[in-house]
Amino acid sequence: MGRTPAHPEVSRFDLQQVLEAVVDPVRRSIVVQLEAAGRDVACGGFDIPVSKSTATHHFKVLREAGLIRQYYVGTSRMNALRREDMNQAFPGLLDALTTPEATRR
Amino acid sequence: MGRTPAHPEVSRFDLQQVLEAVVDPVRRSIVVQLEAAGRDVACGGFDIPVSKSTATHHFKVLREAGLIRQYYVGTSRMNALRREDMNQAFPGLLDALTTPEATRR
Repeated sequence: MGRTPAHPEVSRFDLQQVLEAVVDPVRRSIVVQLEAAGRDVACGGFDIPVSKSTATHHFKVLREAGLIRQYYVGTSRMNALRREDMNQAFPGLLDALTTPEATRR
Repeated sequence: MGRTPAHPEVSRFDLQQVLEAVVDPVRRSIVVQLEAAGRDVACGGFDIPVSKSTATHHFKVLREAGLIRQYYVGTSRMNALRREDMNQAFPGLLDALTTPEATRR
């Protein structure tokens, strides 16, 4: 587990922390892109207008809020949407943030 | 209409603005309390730990984001949740923010 960063358990999810994560447009875009991809995506695979170090910070905030799970494949850090965990903690929230209605405005 | 403050039309609702409104715990509490009340509530009828002038600001932010509609009854300013409008603009979002799972953490 050495290189796997810490992830909160579902019972520790906090709505305030989740909202603070997704209120940032770049972080919300990461979530929307993961949802749209329908698969796990490497950190370098997102279309976001920030530096690599800023992106790393955003991924960390999303991970600590429980929105994404990060793991390594070789030297690539992959990101997975924690859809089931989020749906368990906050039913409907992830869907509401990623509907066509939500993502087009 | 003189004393009725301006309200955005549904077509002008903006998810970023809505998230910035509800990321504040006091404002989110106002929404949750309105949902729980199941009726319109006067500005003085909420259990929130802020001064009257601060509360007025919070109501304004919620109104401008489209979450509540404000109107006068005599000298009381009443607040109504814009449930149908929010559901039309961002299906599921209001429900997700006010579920028992969401409001207990």
